[in-house]
Amino acid sequence: MAVIDMEKPILDKNDRIAQENRALFDRKGVLVLDLMSSPGSGKTTTIQMLIKALGDRYNVAVIEGDIASSVDADKIKAGGNAAVQINTGGLCHLEADMIARAAKVLPLDDLDLIIIENVGNLVCPVDFYLGEHAKIMILSVPEGDDKPLKYPGIFQASKAVIVNKADVKPYFTFDEDLFRQHVAELNPTAPVFTLAATTGEGSKPLVDWVAEHIDEVKAGAEA
Amino acid sequence: MAVIDMEKPILDKNDRIAQENRALFDRKGVLVLDLMSSPGSGKTTTIQMLIKALGDRYNVAVIEGDIASSVDADKIKAGGNAAVQINTGGLCHLEADMIARAAKVLPLDDLDLIIIENVGNLVCPVDFYLGEHAKIMILSVPEGDDKPLKYPGIFQASKAVIVNKADVKPYFTFDEDLFRQHVAELNPTAPVFTLAATTGEGSKPLVDWVAEHIDEVKAGAEA
Repeated sequence: MAVIDMEKPILDKNDRIAQENRALFDRKGVLVLDLMSSPGSGKTTTIQMLIKALGDRYNVAVIEGDIASSVDADKIKAGGNAAVQINTGGLCHLEADMIARAAKVLPLDDLDLIIIENVGNLVCPVDFYLGEHAKIMILSVPEGDDKPLKYPGIFQASKAVIVNKADVKPYFTFDEDLFRQHVAELNPTAPVFTLAATTGEGSKPLVDWVAEHIDEVKAGAEA
Repeated sequence: MAVIDMEKPILDKNDRIAQENRALFDRKGVLVLDLMSSPGSGKTTTIQMLIKALGDRYNVAVIEGDIASSVDADKIKAGGNAAVQINTGGLCHLEADMIARAAKVLPLDDLDLIIIENVGNLVCPVDFYLGEHAKIMILSVPEGDDKPLKYPGIFQASKAVIVNKADVKPYFTFDEDLFRQHVAELNPTAPVFTLAATTGEGSKPLVDWVAEHIDEVKAGAEA
């Protein structure tokens, strides 16, 4: 089918721009994370939690990707951090050129960390490299422990996995051992962080992981 | 961009097959519903609940769409109902030709209702007509009341909206009045059914709605 031939140059173009984004972020010493999850898994709340935990030590900005609305960017801005809203106009993922445009309006010289909140979706964002240092996948407890079986791609593409809404575990049947086993089969090196973003409970290992990666990218830029 | 020109004939082809599907379903007097939601909102559990409530009166079959695995179809088959698994191989939605192929292996003459479980996703399935009589959207309480603002398309495309996992409302901040207001703005005629699919609590209005539509399609075929 002809579409397949059409897709290739577009992906190539996306990857080329993503590589330019990445080179810029490396040069400026800014860690860039791409948060992916279903709608309502707690991406924005996790970002707010990370800003609260890291905001004293690091300057954080957020790029919000949404089909429509600026609900999430408004929340971040209300907290005093730089935020850029990208409305994809129906597209179910962000692309590298959108991040390139967002990067132009962010004060990169002053930043240590940019968190990209991708469109809520377990499928489309997986295939698009944006120039980030790591994709991170959030799965919330109410979604169920079987998601690695049904959406293997996103678990394979992620450098770390967050299990969010751990505080409501008593009210759902969620077998965390089974979930971790599924993830380990797909992606043996990815750490799995279990936490409740709303309260921050259990978030220290993730916060430390992010801080380490910020320092690493910063050290790379200074070297 | 050339891709836009390529998309058109594909959508046209999908719509043509969807219309053939619909004509077949109408002729056989089988109501076909397309269930859409995020991953983990409770599509499979809702289907199991509907089968339990309607199974004495009607013959129900299920078409399960997944990126990978046959977890859901196995659950349905375990209950004794006909189920066809479609693995989309990475594609984030079902298309009409997949339904046409599934329809060929289902005993249409004996069926009253086919429920299609689309791939878990609030974006991609919206644009693809499969030949169904109605698309139904499920939003579970843990996903949050702001989803109509962020994913207006799916709420506009749905003939009915289900609010699932109503039993865990005490543990989440979910403003149902606000949610209903958002939905009414996007889609004034769609009924909103609030229920807990796991227990069946609150499900009677939805069950009655589905039964009415089954009878309507059956009457149409006999006329």
